[in-house]
Amino acid sequence: MMNLEEKTISSKEIYKGKVVHLFEDSVLLQNDKEATREWIEHPGGVCVLAITDEGKVVMVRQYRYAHKAVFLEIPAGKLEPGEDPKLCGIRELEEETGYVAESFEFFAKMIPTPAYVGEVIHIYIARGLRKTAQRLDPDEFLQVEEIPFDEAVKLALDGEITDAKTLVALLKAKVGNN
Amino acid sequence: MMNLEEKTISSKEIYKGKVVHLFEDSVLLQNDKEATREWIEHPGGVCVLAITDEGKVVMVRQYRYAHKAVFLEIPAGKLEPGEDPKLCGIRELEEETGYVAESFEFFAKMIPTPAYVGEVIHIYIARGLRKTAQRLDPDEFLQVEEIPFDEAVKLALDGEITDAKTLVALLKAKVGNN
Repeated sequence: MMNLEEKTISSKEIYKGKVVHLFEDSVLLQNDKEATREWIEHPGGVCVLAITDEGKVVMVRQYRYAHKAVFLEIPAGKLEPGEDPKLCGIRELEEETGYVAESFEFFAKMIPTPAYVGEVIHIYIARGLRKTAQRLDPDEFLQVEEIPFDEAVKLALDGEITDAKTLVALLKAKVGNN
Repeated sequence: MMNLEEKTISSKEIYKGKVVHLFEDSVLLQNDKEATREWIEHPGGVCVLAITDEGKVVMVRQYRYAHKAVFLEIPAGKLEPGEDPKLCGIRELEEETGYVAESFEFFAKMIPTPAYVGEVIHIYIARGLRKTAQRLDPDEFLQVEEIPFDEAVKLALDGEITDAKTLVALLKAKVGNN
């Protein structure tokens, strides 16, 4: 196979916010030329395809400022550095939707934006749900909705759902007959 | 429905690179408290699920610096501001893989990272492929591979493919029996 690697010459931190940690690196290409790579470091995220005993997917509607629009997504959250993705997923599911799950299994790994964001999203599938209580952060606003699985898949196929992690979780579950 | 909107109070440009255009905005939440939103403006992208007459998916292996790894993806590219996504997709497919298509249709819209990146990816499906010649930029390195559709779907289900746009395109095509 062709060697496709790019070697780091130098790395400059541009900005460190709460979410975005931006770098501008100089790299050496395969043709020995130099190029610049802008990229964002990210601790990664988790999301949960939680399915009730009645076969409904637990989803959340949430405002996404970068798109100035409300999105229908599965519950998700950002990892703390070094945090176990499964524990993070269990916590986020309960905080956002008020559900705990008897079965909570790894389902898929997804890279939303390989070109310039280092984020990896760990997708879990949760079943055997039992209701506790939603515990949102004071500055977190979202609305929980339970949607029958096949209806959610139809929303994905029809373009009503556009969020990548939600599409991957629903369509993979559909193909795998989960 | 609950009002989920966040109102912009002020917007500050942090960085403008070739790929990343970063802002830090102050917003007013539903509880009248202020919060900060870090977000990246992006002109959007396209990708193409191109299927040969033999039922093979035309894919590319490419180094992704943000992950320090080679990814197997469908051909893709970034829109120039104001550019028609379909024309961009037709151009990127030919440049990266050396294929032109008789049929080139819109297939899906996907938002890779709604939380903090404004990018929208337009997915097209291309059939009736005819070989011309690959025309890579001098600093672009990638390797074209043609993989039977069901084998590509298996790579997606098995976690060998992790790129979000590629997963969505393959799994949606599988569910829709394309």
